[in-house]
Amino acid sequence: MLDRKHSAPLYEQLKNEIQKMIKDGDLKPDDQIPSERELVEQYNVSRITVRQAINLAEKEGLVKRVHGVGTFVAKPKIKQELSNFNNFESTLQQQGLIATTKMLGSQVITSDFQLSRLLDINVMERVIKLELIGYGDEIPVVYYNSYFPNRVGEKMKQAAEKALQAEKPFSTLDLYRLDQEIGLHPTHVEQTFEAQSAHYPLTEILNVQEGFPLFRVTSIVYQDKTPLEYKETYYRGDKYKFFITRHM
Amino acid sequence: MLDRKHSAPLYEQLKNEIQKMIKDGDLKPDDQIPSERELVEQYNVSRITVRQAINLAEKEGLVKRVHGVGTFVAKPKIKQELSNFNNFESTLQQQGLIATTKMLGSQVITSDFQLSRLLDINVMERVIKLELIGYGDEIPVVYYNSYFPNRVGEKMKQAAEKALQAEKPFSTLDLYRLDQEIGLHPTHVEQTFEAQSAHYPLTEILNVQEGFPLFRVTSIVYQDKTPLEYKETYYRGDKYKFFITRHM
Repeated sequence: MLDRKHSAPLYEQLKNEIQKMIKDGDLKPDDQIPSERELVEQYNVSRITVRQAINLAEKEGLVKRVHGVGTFVAKPKIKQELSNFNNFESTLQQQGLIATTKMLGSQVITSDFQLSRLLDINVMERVIKLELIGYGDEIPVVYYNSYFPNRVGEKMKQAAEKALQAEKPFSTLDLYRLDQEIGLHPTHVEQTFEAQSAHYPLTEILNVQEGFPLFRVTSIVYQDKTPLEYKETYYRGDKYKFFITRHM
Repeated sequence: MLDRKHSAPLYEQLKNEIQKMIKDGDLKPDDQIPSERELVEQYNVSRITVRQAINLAEKEGLVKRVHGVGTFVAKPKIKQELSNFNNFESTLQQQGLIATTKMLGSQVITSDFQLSRLLDINVMERVIKLELIGYGDEIPVVYYNSYFPNRVGEKMKQAAEKALQAEKPFSTLDLYRLDQEIGLHPTHVEQTFEAQSAHYPLTEILNVQEGFPLFRVTSIVYQDKTPLEYKETYYRGDKYKFFITRHM
């Protein structure tokens, strides 16, 4: 119940009530929250107070408004630190999600001009391509499309198959550390982040609609000055956020 | 002309021709490139070669395909380093864009629960809100929505007005450095990056269509342990990419 003598304004108290319902599990992710009219009646407050409460809840990322449909409990996003490298499994675990990885495919291709430049190898050299999908609670959340020079790729493919057999969730970056025998020791990664809309085939791979917001991250993984991997990663925008502390 | 005896495959040579037309200014950003049929006839190559060349050009970010419409020359994105802090003007200058800043408005509000927590002040304290729009060649590319505790905000508002009068482009972060008299010295910024679709009023502010991909960046600017500013920044996804080198 709301306390009219309390120093916190009514809309904030109402927001706290909504927050509590979510925390207690009375409202679950994707549930529609009670309508404005219902909240007005239930808490005996004005429509303006209800709207302010919902605005605040939306600002805090507790709920998501879908225009013309209603207001729904938001799913918390997976928070990925850019200052350190957590593995795929523990990043998802922190959100209470069970991580799994599947291999969409592996191919041997020959490098074109662009890949040769990115991997610092000759044109027409053998390149190994690995495509992985990362799942959180069986929903696809990230798609990795990696290219390795042949000598690196053969090891990575083996390491990936070993992890898949052991049912160990992983990203390609995890493989370098998971499998010590592989003998590869990345030193740094250059990354660009872009925001884009999903189109086919990403719509199918990540099971989202045309136009859905995605992060596109391109990475070059280096061991000292030698590129080990070029990767295009697509993260579902509703599932991921990236966090960084930048010093002046 | 393409050289059939050259070691580079034909599609790569054709991609280089397209790249040259863009570089020489024969094709300008947003121009439609010649159709597949026209390229087949002009360069006397197969349709497959033309498609491979366009695929490669798309991968390299030279062109953008619009399904069912055609292929267009892409505009290069504004590249923002996350490892250091370049100012708004020089970041845009690096892309050959002329930067300008406009103030959409300034307001005195009272802090609600969320703002109080973010700025580490009491509920119902005075907070100054500044809304800025950053333009590149007169196209809105970024929208800053900043909240300052009163003592910081009054100085920042004055600094912003001074910069506007001097027609000096700026972000709020630039103001701390532009105006030494202000006596504020940020030490670090905590930021989260999200990918989302544009809805009203952002569609109007950034002059994009409903559903357009945007970066949403929330920042808390600190001087040691004291928050100076909480900011929500929206970058047009077609205009910006973020770059970082992460060390293991």
